[in-house]
Amino acid sequence: MDPDLSTLDDRLDAAGVDAYCLDAASTEPNQLYLSGFDAPDPFFTAYALTAPDGTGELAVLVSGLEYGRAKKESRADAVARLADYDYHERVGEYGEREGTARTYAAFLADLGVESALVPDRFPVGVADGLREAGVGVGVDGDDVVESVRAVKTDEEVEHVRRAQEANEAALRAAEELIAGAGVADDGTLTHEGEPLTSERVSEEIEVTLLRHGCALDETIVAGGADAADPHDRGSGPLSADEAIVIDVFPRDKASKYHSDMTRTFLKGEPSDEIRDRYDLTEEALEAALAAVEPGATGADVHAAACDVYEAAGHPTLRSDPTTETGYIHSTGHGVGLAVHERPGLNPRGGALEPGHVITVEPGLYDPAVGGVRIEDIVVVTEDGYENLTDYPVELVVG
Amino acid sequence: MDPDLSTLDDRLDAAGVDAYCLDAASTEPNQLYLSGFDAPDPFFTAYALTAPDGTGELAVLVSGLEYGRAKKESRADAVARLADYDYHERVGEYGEREGTARTYAAFLADLGVESALVPDRFPVGVADGLREAGVGVGVDGDDVVESVRAVKTDEEVEHVRRAQEANEAALRAAEELIAGAGVADDGTLTHEGEPLTSERVSEEIEVTLLRHGCALDETIVAGGADAADPHDRGSGPLSADEAIVIDVFPRDKASKYHSDMTRTFLKGEPSDEIRDRYDLTEEALEAALAAVEPGATGADVHAAACDVYEAAGHPTLRSDPTTETGYIHSTGHGVGLAVHERPGLNPRGGALEPGHVITVEPGLYDPAVGGVRIEDIVVVTEDGYENLTDYPVELVVG
Repeated sequence: MDPDLSTLDDRLDAAGVDAYCLDAASTEPNQLYLSGFDAPDPFFTAYALTAPDGTGELAVLVSGLEYGRAKKESRADAVARLADYDYHERVGEYGEREGTARTYAAFLADLGVESALVPDRFPVGVADGLREAGVGVGVDGDDVVESVRAVKTDEEVEHVRRAQEANEAALRAAEELIAGAGVADDGTLTHEGEPLTSERVSEEIEVTLLRHGCALDETIVAGGADAADPHDRGSGPLSADEAIVIDVFPRDKASKYHSDMTRTFLKGEPSDEIRDRYDLTEEALEAALAAVEPGATGADVHAAACDVYEAAGHPTLRSDPTTETGYIHSTGHGVGLAVHERPGLNPRGGALEPGHVITVEPGLYDPAVGGVRIEDIVVVTEDGYENLTDYPVELVVG
Repeated sequence: MDPDLSTLDDRLDAAGVDAYCLDAASTEPNQLYLSGFDAPDPFFTAYALTAPDGTGELAVLVSGLEYGRAKKESRADAVARLADYDYHERVGEYGEREGTARTYAAFLADLGVESALVPDRFPVGVADGLREAGVGVGVDGDDVVESVRAVKTDEEVEHVRRAQEANEAALRAAEELIAGAGVADDGTLTHEGEPLTSERVSEEIEVTLLRHGCALDETIVAGGADAADPHDRGSGPLSADEAIVIDVFPRDKASKYHSDMTRTFLKGEPSDEIRDRYDLTEEALEAALAAVEPGATGADVHAAACDVYEAAGHPTLRSDPTTETGYIHSTGHGVGLAVHERPGLNPRGGALEPGHVITVEPGLYDPAVGGVRIEDIVVVTEDGYENLTDYPVELVVG
């Protein structure tokens, strides 16, 4: 895929610099997106506007170990080796940090680059070193490449869709495990005579994802009080009659794009309190989804979810910024090469555009009751959105 | 685990600064090690020497979403919320980048910190913002925390050992799949009537690792010409009579520590060339291992492997820095919270110390022949090393 980098060109023009630079491994999504090269260790990428015709030239500087693969696989117009710029000699003479910066400076000089924009999270050691070597380095506080990444092509949406299909298979496996669980006298769920734990359900999800070509960093399977903390991954035996939040965010191994979905399951009988919270969360989901369309802002969508919760008397971070119960996170985020990326559905979220792939994920949390969250993933279209999630919204299973 | 931070104290004293700071997610091993807190999004950690008695105080600044968990789980003496330092107001007034830096500066002021050391890869946007807010920010080009991390406690070695046990189970599953494969008329390996692919073997490895409590980022299963590129992960059908390099580096999910091991398998009959290269690589492994002891340097161990290859007439990066065949990588690296960390077994590698956990992984590469690599993981002891790897070194399987 060749990304449309015209927004980046404009940003560089506006900043009056020659190039945009990255120094990161491909685990950093901007690096993977811009270079089109997947490497486990950091390498240097320069997108330079120094060609006489003004077209952008993409150049990468890699170790000898990555050179052959970078020539074959990267999007770069030019691939160079560290050894081409006397990296080892420079490190020998000036030490690792200064030697590396001098190597990069020589590479940039070769491209005719005298000044560069870098993202907020560019390494300060390299930035300071480039500055000492005479290269102007400005920080792009707005992260223009992440904004470019936020708008997906049809091909990228297909990557997310494939990850989401695997996600649904994995969630189905988890649901079946919980639905089919036995219940011990003390209320603990059981599977094949053993307590059914968060870890066991996570394992089932992760194995299913692997069988469907996906990897993942973490899975959340959190029951009871664990689920009242949205970032708690859950541990130990699960119980009947408690809400179990399952949040799965796999990465398709081939494309590296993610999906993200949450359902809350309960085996047994929900209390009125849990049932009310679940129904209200489904209502908040529907309200937030109804607000998704081009031109609406992430703030609008977040407000729609907050409205539902506040009307029912639950605190939100909008009504009480320090609350630790109620609706204590934002309503969603972009999904792509990163699980969490732009745009944000939060009080500062800007305008939605066609091609934005976003989660919508309201939830309610209270250690005394447990947690409830329902999360769909959708793509913003010309006239609203398409829901990429095809999974029932049902609390009680089995 | 409470790390011994006396080396960090000394570094801060020598630099004449008040604190060491990190701004990263826990995927950054220094952050996980220092804060003891596992969070998916970046947060700010300050290790300050400003207490009247000179003892270090560890403080973390997290979002409201992480506050409860950080109080419970982190090693920090003090946990603060972004909202405690008017983060949202500051971002509203000054924008994301400057607002964040001003929030951090207020947090540091509260700790009595006027100047800080940060690692090379600390985000330049935050560093520049702190400097603008009057905080002195110097770069620790030597990454003192990575040096502290390199020396493992017995508990950390046990974490690696557990990951390595899972690793061996996974490699055994891969070996069985290849050993039991059929061979089609064109030489393709088959399994249950289908071609046996790199992807299928990787899946078996990864599922086995999950069943043993490990996750992993990538697996290398590369046969034939794929294996001649040490970073190629391999794809497509595997064949009889070709060397298949399998390099597995799982992370124990509970401890977050890694292991790393490589074996090269061949189903069928090796050519004399492959057999010679395999035997030579085993000889290089033994020579390199024999060089591992406290006081020896990473450079010594690397030289021992290079000596074996060069004596047999193969190029190495030492004899020819631009060679693309022969021995084209370093001899090993530290393993811990990162798969690749200090110490390096390379031409610049420094002295080995008891507690260093390192790989030793010589290999030979040539697209015309294929690749061969054998990798063990060992811990440096008071009088040599203990090999944490318990897996046969045998080329032909089945």
